Amino acid sequence: MLTLYQLHNVKHHEVFLTVLFDIQISDNWPGYSLDLFTYPQHYYGDLEYVLIPHGIIVDRTERLAKDIMQDLGDNDIVVLCVLKGGYKFCADLVEHIKNLSRNSERFISMKVDFVRLKSYHNDQSMQDMQIMGGDDLSKLAGKNVLIVEDIVGTGRTMKVLLNNIEKYKPKMIKVASLLVKRTSRPDGYRPDCMWLNSKRIDPPRRDRPVFATEKDSGQLRWGGG
Amino acid sequence: MLTLYQLHNVKHHEVFLTVLFDIQISDNWPGYSLDLFTYPQHYYGDLEYVLIPHGIIVDRTERLAKDIMQDLGDNDIVVLCVLKGGYKFCADLVEHIKNLSRNSERFISMKVDFVRLKSYHNDQSMQDMQIMGGDDLSKLAGKNVLIVEDIVGTGRTMKVLLNNIEKYKPKMIKVASLLVKRTSRPDGYRPDCMWLNSKRIDPPRRDRPVFATEKDSGQLRWGGG
Amino acid sequence: MLTLYQLHNVKHHEVFLTVLFDIQISDNWPGYSLDLFTYPQHYYGDLEYVLIPHGIIVDRTERLAKDIMQDLGDNDIVVLCVLKGGYKFCADLVEHIKNLSRNSERFISMKVDFVRLKSYHNDQSMQDMQIMGGDDLSKLAGKNVLIVEDIVGTGRTMKVLLNNIEKYKPKMIKVASLLVKRTSRPDGYRPDCMWLNSKRIDPPRRDRPVFATEKDSGQLRWGGG
Amino acid sequence: MLTLYQLHNVKHHEVFLTVLFDIQISDNWPGYSLDLFTYPQHYYGDLEYVLIPHGIIVDRTERLAKDIMQDLGDNDIVVLCVLKGGYKFCADLVEHIKNLSRNSERFISMKVDFVRLKSYHNDQSMQDMQIMGGDDLSKLAGKNVLIVEDIVGTGRTMKVLLNNIEKYKPKMIKVASLLVKRTSRPDGYRPDCMWLNSKRIDPPRRDRPVFATEKDSGQLRWGGG
Repeated sequence: MLTLYQLHNVKHHEVFLTVLFDIQISDNWPGYSLDLFTYPQHYYGDLEYVLIPHGIIVDRTERLAKDIMQDLGDNDIVVLCVLKGGYKFCADLVEHIKNLSRNSERFISMKVDFVRLKSYHNDQSMQDMQIMGGDDLSKLAGKNVLIVEDIVGTGRTMKVLLNNIEKYKPKMIKVASLLVKRTSRPDGYRPDCMWLNSKRIDPPRRDRPVFATEKDSGQLRWGGG
Repeated sequence: MLTLYQLHNVKHHEVFLTVLFDIQISDNWPGYSLDLFTYPQHYYGDLEYVLIPHGIIVDRTERLAKDIMQDLGDNDIVVLCVLKGGYKFCADLVEHIKNLSRNSERFISMKVDFVRLKSYHNDQSMQDMQIMGGDDLSKLAGKNVLIVEDIVGTGRTMKVLLNNIEKYKPKMIKVASLLVKRTSRPDGYRPDCMWLNSKRIDPPRRDRPVFATEKDSGQLRWGGG
Repeated sequence: MLTLYQLHNVKHHEVFLTVLFDIQISDNWPGYSLDLFTYPQHYYGDLEYVLIPHGIIVDRTERLAKDIMQDLGDNDIVVLCVLKGGYKFCADLVEHIKNLSRNSERFISMKVDFVRLKSYHNDQSMQDMQIMGGDDLSKLAGKNVLIVEDIVGTGRTMKVLLNNIEKYKPKMIKVASLLVKRTSRPDGYRPDCMWLNSKRIDPPRRDRPVFATEKDSGQLRWGGG
Repeated sequence: MLTLYQLHNVKHHEVFLTVLFDIQISDNWPGYSLDLFTYPQHYYGDLEYVLIPHGIIVDRTERLAKDIMQDLGDNDIVVLCVLKGGYKFCADLVEHIKNLSRNSERFISMKVDFVRLKSYHNDQSMQDMQIMGGDDLSKLAGKNVLIVEDIVGTGRTMKVLLNNIEKYKPKMIKVASLLVKRTSRPDGYRPDCMWLNSKRIDPPRRDRPVFATEKDSGQLRWGGG
């Protein structure tokens, strides 16, 4: 089963949210000591501990790729990478799926496209969405779409994206998110169940990004709120 | 030395093109037999041979990262990934640079942004360029910019991109391209030297993409001409 | 600092035990669900949970390599791999050290040799040790020796090995062990401090090996006791 | 088909030699420039060029694992790693096979053991062979045996090993060798066909080992002759 957490049910399409971890990172989990892993020198002052070691993400991504293969195998899919945060997770996930395609009987034919969500003065009006890969959203009609995101916060952004895509009547939409953030402001779409997995993190100061892993990385940098 | 091939000299900035291979792939190089490597089943009918094994790209990317580290180390750089083709190569290159950052005295602080070039009716007028990562080009002012592209063909596209970026007066621009295509239509900027490296490939049929490697992938799919 | 746990102090040589984890795997840690990771089909019936995901071992091994580099860099060392269990961990550790050697100013020149301990009727008399790599132990005289083992149980085996090697007056001996087993029978040499890290595991049935990780593997298969 | 080159035919058992490359490395192939790849600093003076980039070995090993899976899948096999040279190639090959086992319907149950060949005064009499992994050769009776070696030179060593193993009546023997050396002294068993693949290399000076790859490594160090 690919889908662990149901995000919401769209009328005509199956919409799911897949998260990386299905165990909570509890608020009193102290994290791993920085001395256990390697990380770039210039992070020294900014990091306190490692929440999720990079290798677990690698292992989980491999399994996620296998689940996607089982669920979507023998289909043509359009992978819709949400920039900027999702690009590294997307590249890794696609790589794992291709590894499986090279070595198994089944395969997934994938096209990767990119989407960037721009929010304007009023966050509520974030309806204007650009698709970046040169193709426009109308090409998603009748297609199996896999949205790849790094982190789902309040769910509001994902809601806007899903609403936009559904207008073009894709055959199916699935969402693979590396993380789901525990938040006290669930004013958008929320996963129906509350087994959220990321520790609540205060908005980082702009000048000192907070990272959740020892390695890298854009995909695990939390923005505020 | 990072730069193997000089693309062109801009008045105020250093502009270089770094290519993956500095030996030509000669026109009578038959390629490797498909039986030597693994590749997805649904490519069987479309592939004839392997021009560049995936592993050589991995090795070269590792070295390229080391060269970039040596050239740009201890600087803040903006990596400008050219979508769609460049995203995989960019993700791999950035990963290698981070590996080095984790394990050496030097580091590079990187921000990754994305750019997509849209060509209109008249290719000559491809001056209208969107920057996709949410930031606009003006943020490149005074920065060290590393453009990452998968393949340079006639050089015309790169010329347009460089012209656009230079207006914003970055401190430095460098271009890292996985491949440089040998072409009979060098009507744009060309590398000054002609040690081009990719074999000439006839425009593939639209419905049957021609791949240069056994693995994957968008970044090695040749468009026409 | 390479050495986290001191195994024992030999008269003339520095002898240390380095372990992978310095946090205990507590007895009430339930492990990760098998559904989170991939593992070979024929393990299905034999596995209950994942104690230590493979990726954490990868990350820790990378850091261990960095520590060894810092401690032993610019020295010639002899890596003494303890067969059979240690060969995979040893190959990975050596690979990581070589990665560092390729990309840093420092390097370690390594020779890898193999040792196999044979126990006879009376375990106490396990003094007869074969060195397998074609070389004999006398070649260790004056050398920096890094013993690589997968798991230290009671410490008795390591004690015998150390005693044997010390006769040949190496310059230094260090021990890198992937795991240290918590045991109720510390009748051999023990690390001085008791921050042992592996969960106590009942002797697995002979016909159904118990594995600690989802992937593989010989190096994490616990023998009885 | 796993087997590319037939080594010899034993009366009761199928015996094959699988090599990594089935195209010759011709004597006038100049190799890749050292500037294209990374390698440890202390090799600088000793290396002239790269014969076989590390990444090609990785790719070929992945395919080899797939072939072995197809040939031997659903069997229990004993992997017999020939020390010292074969240990790295063996670890990599076993890792690739396990990757396939985790992600496909088929699997191979593997036990890895180690063998070391000792030659005495008279090379011809190299009949006395130790098996290192604690088990003795009699345990190979009725088993599917996969011998993993890094390089086959004259074939004499492999002949001795095969003769020894056959006495114990294994069900099947297969040989996977990373390389086959072109030699002018084929005084032992030779592959029946002469598509040998490694360039002839003059005996390296003892104090300055000649490596064929930029990375590492024991498995590609040529001994004399």
